[in-house]
Amino acid sequence: MSSKAIAVNPQQPDAFLEIERPLPIPEAFDLLVEVKAVSINPVDTKVHAGLKKNGLQQPRILGWDASGIVTAVGSSASQFNVGDEVWYAGDITRDGSNARHQLIDSRIVSAKPKSLNWAQAAAMPLTALTAWEGLFEHLKIQDAPEGKTLLIIGGAGGVGSLAIPFAALRSKVKIIATASKPESAAWCRERGAHLTVDYRHLKQELEQAGIKQVDYIFCLNDTDGHWAAISDLIAPMGHICTIVENTQPLNQSALKSKSAALHWELMFTRSMFQTADIAEQGQILRQVAELVDLGKLQSTLSETLHGFSIENIVAAHHKVLEGHMQGKLVIEF
Amino acid sequence: MSSKAIAVNPQQPDAFLEIERPLPIPEAFDLLVEVKAVSINPVDTKVHAGLKKNGLQQPRILGWDASGIVTAVGSSASQFNVGDEVWYAGDITRDGSNARHQLIDSRIVSAKPKSLNWAQAAAMPLTALTAWEGLFEHLKIQDAPEGKTLLIIGGAGGVGSLAIPFAALRSKVKIIATASKPESAAWCRERGAHLTVDYRHLKQELEQAGIKQVDYIFCLNDTDGHWAAISDLIAPMGHICTIVENTQPLNQSALKSKSAALHWELMFTRSMFQTADIAEQGQILRQVAELVDLGKLQSTLSETLHGFSIENIVAAHHKVLEGHMQGKLVIEF
Repeated sequence: MSSKAIAVNPQQPDAFLEIERPLPIPEAFDLLVEVKAVSINPVDTKVHAGLKKNGLQQPRILGWDASGIVTAVGSSASQFNVGDEVWYAGDITRDGSNARHQLIDSRIVSAKPKSLNWAQAAAMPLTALTAWEGLFEHLKIQDAPEGKTLLIIGGAGGVGSLAIPFAALRSKVKIIATASKPESAAWCRERGAHLTVDYRHLKQELEQAGIKQVDYIFCLNDTDGHWAAISDLIAPMGHICTIVENTQPLNQSALKSKSAALHWELMFTRSMFQTADIAEQGQILRQVAELVDLGKLQSTLSETLHGFSIENIVAAHHKVLEGHMQGKLVIEF
Repeated sequence: MSSKAIAVNPQQPDAFLEIERPLPIPEAFDLLVEVKAVSINPVDTKVHAGLKKNGLQQPRILGWDASGIVTAVGSSASQFNVGDEVWYAGDITRDGSNARHQLIDSRIVSAKPKSLNWAQAAAMPLTALTAWEGLFEHLKIQDAPEGKTLLIIGGAGGVGSLAIPFAALRSKVKIIATASKPESAAWCRERGAHLTVDYRHLKQELEQAGIKQVDYIFCLNDTDGHWAAISDLIAPMGHICTIVENTQPLNQSALKSKSAALHWELMFTRSMFQTADIAEQGQILRQVAELVDLGKLQSTLSETLHGFSIENIVAAHHKVLEGHMQGKLVIEF
C-alpha cells in the first residue's frame, strides 16, 4: 500500500511535487499517523529557502505541525493505540507532516484536545511547545513574584498568540505585547495581554505607560532589529529569550553590566539531539490539551485552506512569507 | 578628624598617591567601617587601565574587598552596631576600600566569619558573591539532578577557588575544573573538583574522560578565547555563565540549535542599579560566613602583604596583572 506526500522537488527546488511512498511500519517509539490537518510555520519557508539555495538530492517533505489518527504503533510506544486522535509538531531531522501518513516519535506526541476539530488542533503544537518552553523552561516566569513584567515582541503571531494566554494562565507577570495594527492589538488583549505597544515606538510607548524596564523579554521576531531596544529595556538580572536567529553580532555590553541572560529556544532541540528528557514535549502537549478542554485556552487558528494539494501548500507558504500573520494558517486534508 | 586613603593620581594616572579626607558621617543605609584588610581583584586593574586611558579629574580610590570594624551607623542600618566585625565587596560606583575608613551600604555587608582573621576574610567577599550568584542565581546548579556536569574554566583563580567548594557543598553536579599547572590542579581537587583538565587541550581531555558535553559552564577567564570550545561543549538545553567581557562577537549559532542560554554575572549589578533585592548580597555573605564558621569552607587567601602603603598596592596590582593567580592576594593594614 502506498501513500501520497507533497515534497520539495529536487529537480526544481522552488516548486513542490506529489510523491507516492510505501506505507512504513513503525518501530520502537514510533507511531504511524494518518494526517488530517497540518499547519504552516515560518520553519517551513526557512527550510524551503535553504533547499532552494543549496539544492537537494531527494524530495524533501516539509510540515511540522499536525493532527491525525494513529494507524499503527511501534513496540515501545505502548501508551498509544490504533485509533487514538493525536497532535504533535514533529522532528526537523525527519520527513514532515505534508503527507497522508507520517512516522512520528510517540514521546513528542499527545492526545489531541477533544474539544477541537482537526484544523483547530493542527494550528497549535509547534507554537505551543515553543511558547511553553520559552516561558516556563527558559524564562521561568512561573517563579516570578507579583509586580514583574514580561514583554512579548510579536504578540499576535503564532507563538505570541499562545505565549500571551500561557503567561496569563500560569504566572503573575504583567503581560505587555507588541502589536502594530489595531486588530492585532485587540487580538492580543482578548488573549490576556495587559498592555499592547507598537514595536515601532517601543521605548516611548512603554515610558508613557510608566515602564522604564522589563524583567522578561520573549522575542518572537527580528532579533537583529529589536536587539538595541531589548538590551536597553531589559532590567538588571533580567532574562531574554529569543526564537529568531540573529544575522548580526548581538552586542553583549548592556547584558554584562546588568547581569542579564540570553536564552535561545528552538522547539526542535529535544528531538534533534534525542535528549534524555525528550518525553517532556509529550507532557507539555498533554497539559496544553487539558487547558483547551477545560475551556481556558482557545485555538489560534485564523484561516483554513481545504484540500491536501500543491496549490494549498504554495498558497500557505506565500501567506507565511508575507509576514505579520495573526494566529495560524492550517491546511485541512 | 581626617583619614588616609590611597588613590589613583589624577596628575599621573599610572601612579597612586596618598590623600587625607575628612571622616564622613554615615547616612541612611550606610555604615562607616575602619578597614583592616583589603583584597586586590582583576576589577582593580581593569578600572585602573580605564583611568590610565581616559584620565580622571579627582583622585580615585580603588579596592572592592574588605574586612573591618563598624565605627558609625546610618539611621536605616540598625541591624549593625559600632564594633561589629564585617566583610563586604562594595560598590563600583563609590570610593573603594583602599582607605583607612570607608562608607558602605549595610545591605551588601555581613558579619565576617568569626573563625577567620582580617586577611583571610578580606580575600573572599567579591569572589564569593560572584561565584554564588553565578552558580546559584544564574546557572541554578542546586536544581540539577544527579548526573549533570559543571565545567569551571579557571578553577584555581579567586572565583574558581570558591565556585568549586560552593558547587560541591550545595549541588549534586560533577565538577570539572580547568587547571594548567600541576599545583593548580591539586588546589582544585583539594577544594572538591572531581576532575581537572588542561584548558589548552580541553576537548581532548574531556573526551578521554568520556565526557562529550557539559550541562553547565562557568567561564572565569577569556570568554573570547574559550567561546568556540564553550559553544561546542555545551549540552542541549545547557547553561553558560561568564564573568569576563567579550571583545569579539560571540557566535550564537550553536546555542540557538541547542536551546542553550548565556548568562552574564557581574557582582556589582545590584549595587550599581540599586535593585529591589540588593540585600540579597548581605544574605549571601551571611551564608558564606556560616559555611566558613562550620568548617565547611576555607579562605582562599594565598598571599598577604603587610602594611597599607602605595608600594603594596602597586605590588598587588602587578601580581594580579601577571595572571594565573592561585587563590587571592590580600593587603593587611
